[in-house]
Amino acid sequence: MERLQSHVLGRWHDAAGDLATLVDPTSESPIAVCGSGGIDFRAVLAFARDQGGPALAGLSFAERGKLLAGVAGAIHAKRDELIEVSIRSAGTTRGDAKFDIDGAIGTLTYYAGLGEKLGARTYLLDGAQVQLGRTPRFSGVHLCVPRRGVAVHVNAFNFPAWGMLEKAACALLAGVPVVEKPGTPTALLAWRIAREVVEHGGLPAGAFQFIAGSLGDLLDHLGPQDALAFTGSSATGAKLRGHPNLVRRNVRVNIEADSLNAAVLAPDVDPGSETFGLFVNNVVLDMTQKTGQKCTAVRRVLVPGDALSLVRDELVAALARIVVGDPADKATRMGPLASKSQLDDVRAGIERLARAGTIACGGAGPIRPQGYFVAPTLIVARDGRDPAFHAEEVFGPVAALLPYSGEAREAAVLVNLGGGGLVCSAYSNDAAWNQAFALEAAPWHGRVWLASDKMAEQALPPGMVLPQMVHGGPGRAGGGEELGAERGLSFYLQRTALQGFQGHLPT
Amino acid sequence: MERLQSHVLGRWHDAAGDLATLVDPTSESPIAVCGSGGIDFRAVLAFARDQGGPALAGLSFAERGKLLAGVAGAIHAKRDELIEVSIRSAGTTRGDAKFDIDGAIGTLTYYAGLGEKLGARTYLLDGAQVQLGRTPRFSGVHLCVPRRGVAVHVNAFNFPAWGMLEKAACALLAGVPVVEKPGTPTALLAWRIAREVVEHGGLPAGAFQFIAGSLGDLLDHLGPQDALAFTGSSATGAKLRGHPNLVRRNVRVNIEADSLNAAVLAPDVDPGSETFGLFVNNVVLDMTQKTGQKCTAVRRVLVPGDALSLVRDELVAALARIVVGDPADKATRMGPLASKSQLDDVRAGIERLARAGTIACGGAGPIRPQGYFVAPTLIVARDGRDPAFHAEEVFGPVAALLPYSGEAREAAVLVNLGGGGLVCSAYSNDAAWNQAFALEAAPWHGRVWLASDKMAEQALPPGMVLPQMVHGGPGRAGGGEELGAERGLSFYLQRTALQGFQGHLPT
Repeated sequence: MERLQSHVLGRWHDAAGDLATLVDPTSESPIAVCGSGGIDFRAVLAFARDQGGPALAGLSFAERGKLLAGVAGAIHAKRDELIEVSIRSAGTTRGDAKFDIDGAIGTLTYYAGLGEKLGARTYLLDGAQVQLGRTPRFSGVHLCVPRRGVAVHVNAFNFPAWGMLEKAACALLAGVPVVEKPGTPTALLAWRIAREVVEHGGLPAGAFQFIAGSLGDLLDHLGPQDALAFTGSSATGAKLRGHPNLVRRNVRVNIEADSLNAAVLAPDVDPGSETFGLFVNNVVLDMTQKTGQKCTAVRRVLVPGDALSLVRDELVAALARIVVGDPADKATRMGPLASKSQLDDVRAGIERLARAGTIACGGAGPIRPQGYFVAPTLIVARDGRDPAFHAEEVFGPVAALLPYSGEAREAAVLVNLGGGGLVCSAYSNDAAWNQAFALEAAPWHGRVWLASDKMAEQALPPGMVLPQMVHGGPGRAGGGEELGAERGLSFYLQRTALQGFQGHLPT
Repeated sequence: MERLQSHVLGRWHDAAGDLATLVDPTSESPIAVCGSGGIDFRAVLAFARDQGGPALAGLSFAERGKLLAGVAGAIHAKRDELIEVSIRSAGTTRGDAKFDIDGAIGTLTYYAGLGEKLGARTYLLDGAQVQLGRTPRFSGVHLCVPRRGVAVHVNAFNFPAWGMLEKAACALLAGVPVVEKPGTPTALLAWRIAREVVEHGGLPAGAFQFIAGSLGDLLDHLGPQDALAFTGSSATGAKLRGHPNLVRRNVRVNIEADSLNAAVLAPDVDPGSETFGLFVNNVVLDMTQKTGQKCTAVRRVLVPGDALSLVRDELVAALARIVVGDPADKATRMGPLASKSQLDDVRAGIERLARAGTIACGGAGPIRPQGYFVAPTLIVARDGRDPAFHAEEVFGPVAALLPYSGEAREAAVLVNLGGGGLVCSAYSNDAAWNQAFALEAAPWHGRVWLASDKMAEQALPPGMVLPQMVHGGPGRAGGGEELGAERGLSFYLQRTALQGFQGHLPT
């Protein structure tokens, strides 16, 4: 049994207090304990603000970028070992483990490159100088400077590597120290990564702290220069956003929560075409990658009514080829869910959806004697507008097939019933169809992904979060925004209007 | 007695329900009543979302800009009359009334011009296309589209014209309908303006609604595409931000609240110089304009210890020349506070500050037999770090004089004790001093204003909010942001990452 440590105040802190037990979701065997008892969270924040913050803010973007490159290198050096840890502790297949770990390395590397591009400055200019007086002598410019606080990241269990390090990359590049709290079920991998981040020694003291366990009273001590970013359930997100101290002190809060991501097939796409193939492949990938435990995974599949049975049969056939089992087996394509509570939630969700439709494949029942396994499950809706399919995310390898008229605007209206999402995708070779869909879906989504035969052979799938583009979404999805190149830094920066003599303003 | 009406669902709604009485702060005579009883707030929001929203979103930015120009023209046509209303009902001098009304017209005109510049498009592009695939065929671009909700604006009493219309200008130009709720003490002027906005007939149905009275249960009906912008006290701001429905549904909230704005004199500025004169003039202007009821007014004046008595004497002499009285008299330079409750708060605030210092002029006592008058009051702090001067805003013609070492960084650290402000100003002819101050103060301020002899003759004062530059501030100031040219639209837009075939993405 590993005892996960926290790293606070410049040293490792052994698991203490109320201990949580982590379980290998494949074998159901206990593998580790963690607990943050005895940590002085007020001191943790002060250490970040007083030591990590000034050290980072004093560096240029290029220098901060080099720190990120160092972290990426340290993780890459242990990549094989970390993949094994993921397989043994988090129920991920080798492919899923690589997706998470390489996503982390890739995002760190991207932001390292952005730092290099931003160069020798310690703050950003937002836009050009503008004349405010009769002549340009009295002018103004917008400056974005690192806030003097700490970035607290409450990460989700599904991406212990990528989720933690994409948040850390943005904060550190902005010049703000981080406190990372991993999701408990997969904290073993996060802790192993934190060890590499700490032990490679490249970060200034106080820039990176790691809490294996609960945050205790930490939120009570956040102040107006601090920021809290959370990825997880809407319910927990609402609790954090409404936390009295965060409300009272205007602490910045960013939330990425539930999302009933949709994929839409347009009527012009012929079965057998490249675009159709991409559609089927992406839906199956999104349903089964990480056992459907991706915030961007497809939960609703909209298909013109007359194509419904064809698409159902294609998806059922493709899902039948997904080998479910021990992720350590090379043949396995899908492992278990990450925890017992996820399994319970997913089973309940399948039963709820099944009451409003027909199970085409899979179902809520057990498929292996041991482990938190569930079958890839496709449910055909009786009524595409039934709220059962638009109101609650089932966070597993589960999707619903919904018929619609084939009209772009109607598709978007149906998709928008999700109440705000991270991403939706549409498949049409008709540019006008794609654009009509995109403009109608855009207000309700952080990202809209448009497939066509013109890009099918080189498209990265819609479930993949790219550092170049923003990630987040309105409403149910939390109302937050992350990544998107420089856009991802702004959560950690204060934008300040500077007015004065033109010659005294920074350029 | 006027009976203020609301304008909802396309028609005027008479004052009803629990009526609030508005009082002329000069004579203490009741002048109007208002009340929003009988209004169906759920229907108000639906009318905005279903009629105003689509009508606005269907227009181009240039067309929306023309709507704003029309509103500006309608108000300008009644400018003289509105100035009289302000003087008679809100206790403002003619100059103060013009400041508010011309500020409104100017901001509308600025955003009308921005609309023209943004042209024939109905949404904005944020940045250029970026290549995401092996070749540019698979690319991405960020789109900013109007949200499908309503913008609810809870305005402050101090700028019934400017405050309401700068918020409306940004929302309407973004393509989002507004519901405006004025601050009650000065709602008479806001109502007269709303009449012009409605009666000139230029806006689509549902684009502009006006609530004279309380918002009833309106906040309970806001949803994920809606936005609430509030200007007023930190306490009310926190209540709004923590409102369970807003938290649960991820309604966007922007708050502009208390701010202990500071002005700092550097040690290099000679008495008698142009920069020194500008410093004294601006401090006196900020203290007395609108009877100090400006969110950007100076509350703390930092002066090198050895210049303290000289500056005190200069300010006392200048404040003695401010004629306080009936704002209808041409000679009057400062009118009453806007309400009895403001008077009570300001008197209590003066007494609180006086316990930590010495009153150099003014004080909490009555100065006229009638009306909510208070004398311009300057208090010299015994200890510049005393929390009494940094922890609570006194919203009237009151400032504290605080000694400091003359060192730029120390000045900024003292200023930052305010816990987050809208604006601070510094006066130095030394570029290095100004820049050192600016960079240290920036994380805690939405705006930093730097004076020097190089811009003294054409500088607009720091208390003036310009549409080109962002307005808002971290921490105590509410953590919000408004205006700043296109930046002010983003609160009302959804930023959406669009990915797909390059030729299908908008340019």
